Amino acid sequence: MRVLVLGSGQLARMMALDAMPLNIEVQAFDVRSDQIVDPLSQQVLGEGLSQALRDADVVTAEFEHIPAAVLELCEQSGKFLPGQDAIQAGGDRRLEKALLQQAGVASAHFHLVQSKADLEAAVAKLGLPLVLKSALEGYDGKGQWRLKQMEQLDAVWAEVAQFLKQASKKAKQGIVAEQFIPFDYEVSLVGARGKDGSTVFYPLTENHHVNGVLSVSLARSEHPLQAQAEQMFQAIADKLNYVGVLAIEFFVVGEQLLVNELAPRVHNSGHWTQQGADTSQFANHIRAVCGLPLGATTVLRPTLMVNILGLDQLPDALLAIAGLHVHWYGKTARPGRKMGHINLSADTTEQLAKRFAQLMALLPAEDFPELELLLTKI
Amino acid sequence: MRVLVLGSGQLARMMALDAMPLNIEVQAFDVRSDQIVDPLSQQVLGEGLSQALRDADVVTAEFEHIPAAVLELCEQSGKFLPGQDAIQAGGDRRLEKALLQQAGVASAHFHLVQSKADLEAAVAKLGLPLVLKSALEGYDGKGQWRLKQMEQLDAVWAEVAQFLKQASKKAKQGIVAEQFIPFDYEVSLVGARGKDGSTVFYPLTENHHVNGVLSVSLARSEHPLQAQAEQMFQAIADKLNYVGVLAIEFFVVGEQLLVNELAPRVHNSGHWTQQGADTSQFANHIRAVCGLPLGATTVLRPTLMVNILGLDQLPDALLAIAGLHVHWYGKTARPGRKMGHINLSADTTEQLAKRFAQLMALLPAEDFPELELLLTKI
Repeated sequence: MRVLVLGSGQLARMMALDAMPLNIEVQAFDVRSDQIVDPLSQQVLGEGLSQALRDADVVTAEFEHIPAAVLELCEQSGKFLPGQDAIQAGGDRRLEKALLQQAGVASAHFHLVQSKADLEAAVAKLGLPLVLKSALEGYDGKGQWRLKQMEQLDAVWAEVAQFLKQASKKAKQGIVAEQFIPFDYEVSLVGARGKDGSTVFYPLTENHHVNGVLSVSLARSEHPLQAQAEQMFQAIADKLNYVGVLAIEFFVVGEQLLVNELAPRVHNSGHWTQQGADTSQFANHIRAVCGLPLGATTVLRPTLMVNILGLDQLPDALLAIAGLHVHWYGKTARPGRKMGHINLSADTTEQLAKRFAQLMALLPAEDFPELELLLTKI
Repeated sequence: MRVLVLGSGQLARMMALDAMPLNIEVQAFDVRSDQIVDPLSQQVLGEGLSQALRDADVVTAEFEHIPAAVLELCEQSGKFLPGQDAIQAGGDRRLEKALLQQAGVASAHFHLVQSKADLEAAVAKLGLPLVLKSALEGYDGKGQWRLKQMEQLDAVWAEVAQFLKQASKKAKQGIVAEQFIPFDYEVSLVGARGKDGSTVFYPLTENHHVNGVLSVSLARSEHPLQAQAEQMFQAIADKLNYVGVLAIEFFVVGEQLLVNELAPRVHNSGHWTQQGADTSQFANHIRAVCGLPLGATTVLRPTLMVNILGLDQLPDALLAIAGLHVHWYGKTARPGRKMGHINLSADTTEQLAKRFAQLMALLPAEDFPELELLLTKI
């Protein structure tokens, strides 16, 4: 069995690593270069989407910002899971919002903005402060603006208008204005839905972002809002007849969850499952899209994940910490680039806090900001 | 960092899978074809040992039956770990016995046999029954004879003499006659020794063989003979200044362990560590030979391993059993060939026994003989 993954980054790589023991081969399709590559060695295996689709039994994706023509060809192959609708909903905030409304799932109130008049209407409808988010290509905090006071409206609109003008050449870019949510913290639910409609869920993960980029995810075995999150997942996944791993990021506001965004794929906040759960999110995505039974999501041990950004080396002494596993992505370092992650597990949360303190003492503080904030939360 | 593994089978493959997250590349050298191959894709990357050695930072092995000329070149490279002496001791029962004697470690009394007169001397010295084992190329029960009564001596010697005559052309084959050990059962210890002399140990694994081939390994967290086994490991590993994973198979006779044989490498009876331990044996071998800190060997859950012999497919329904993970090796099926293994974990031994019963019900009984014997032991 061969699975083609759109995208040849770390998510394809980690899926390939977990697919291999199942005798399932993963090939990656680099959408920009039009090349078929081995996601483990990055070796070029061939060229062109048509050949890649022909040679694959199943097609899936590691990201959602995929040109419409590529998505259409994949959909036509009849092998694409979770499919065009799901990927597009993940890649366009307008479609995402429409999906959430159809599924009856709570998220921040919003208004679509293409003009200054739209923005004024958004303020009138939603009040202030507002968060403006680009409909397309928005990830890791990019393409976002805040409008706190009416006096800022002209200045913010000038920036947004400039952004829309630059973007409009290639795709139908737009802005979703959202009511600002004064959330307590952020969590995400990673789950998988099989071809038979069965679902499995990992526990809600608490996520800490720095400058809009995920820094740490912490998996607890029990979270009071787990059932609410699973119901929302079910509603969305059933609406899409979704197959594969789906990640949902939520704002926690008191006892209520509001969907922040969807990722129709394996997700950074699920990397902890490699060490912390019976079956990893990568293995479960492969199982799901290949029509195999989903694996148990039982938590083995309290586990947290720390992203490694912009660095291609860390002190070897890290590996002497029990329960610590580094996952490098084999990429060339660039400032801020996701280069790898650290999974840290322990038998108890107390032990995890101790090990996290050991870890912090060995990491260069300037490259891992705000980690100390986490220590109090474990 | 690049590690060259002598041998391109499943052990090299599983080391490569666990090395990749550490940004360590594993290449394999196929001793028979003289080719350098990617152990994951089996793609040919180059030719010749000299080039392979030049391009590697570290050289290690996945098997011990390696031509002397190859071993010598590896040793001369100055990159070979655990090194020529260790590999040869694992590949020649005469050297193994000499090593065990030097290390003061108990094993069956023995006598070297090259002639019928030697065999008669062995009987006089050791009594009956005797087990005759080929000094070279003996594994998975091949090249073994039993001598139970004096009347069989001529017939057994005829077979052994024929074997020696056929073998003598290529290597200095010989026979080690061993006192038959009426053992209670077999266990093995897998451990790792680092460049700094530090050691880590997995718990003793109980092994069940069928026709001389490992069928099932069962890892318990506590075994009363663990300390004895670790002392014997230390004595042997220190003698060799060993670096890497070393596996020792023991006969259990009452309260005493007798070494059956050594494997200077990752070992089939350690495959359960992929799911059952904090760090797998594969990751720990890579860490050791690369001079990295060894990983914790903490047992996460009671885990057993079942070998898959001669089959390249099993019912998908297996994957619906919680705690079950299949590891295929991507090989072409031949009768009796090791094709993959199943790791089965559970929170408790009672739950493990239940899951094992579920597993047995799904496996074709003729391909997995004697499994039911295990059920009573879990």
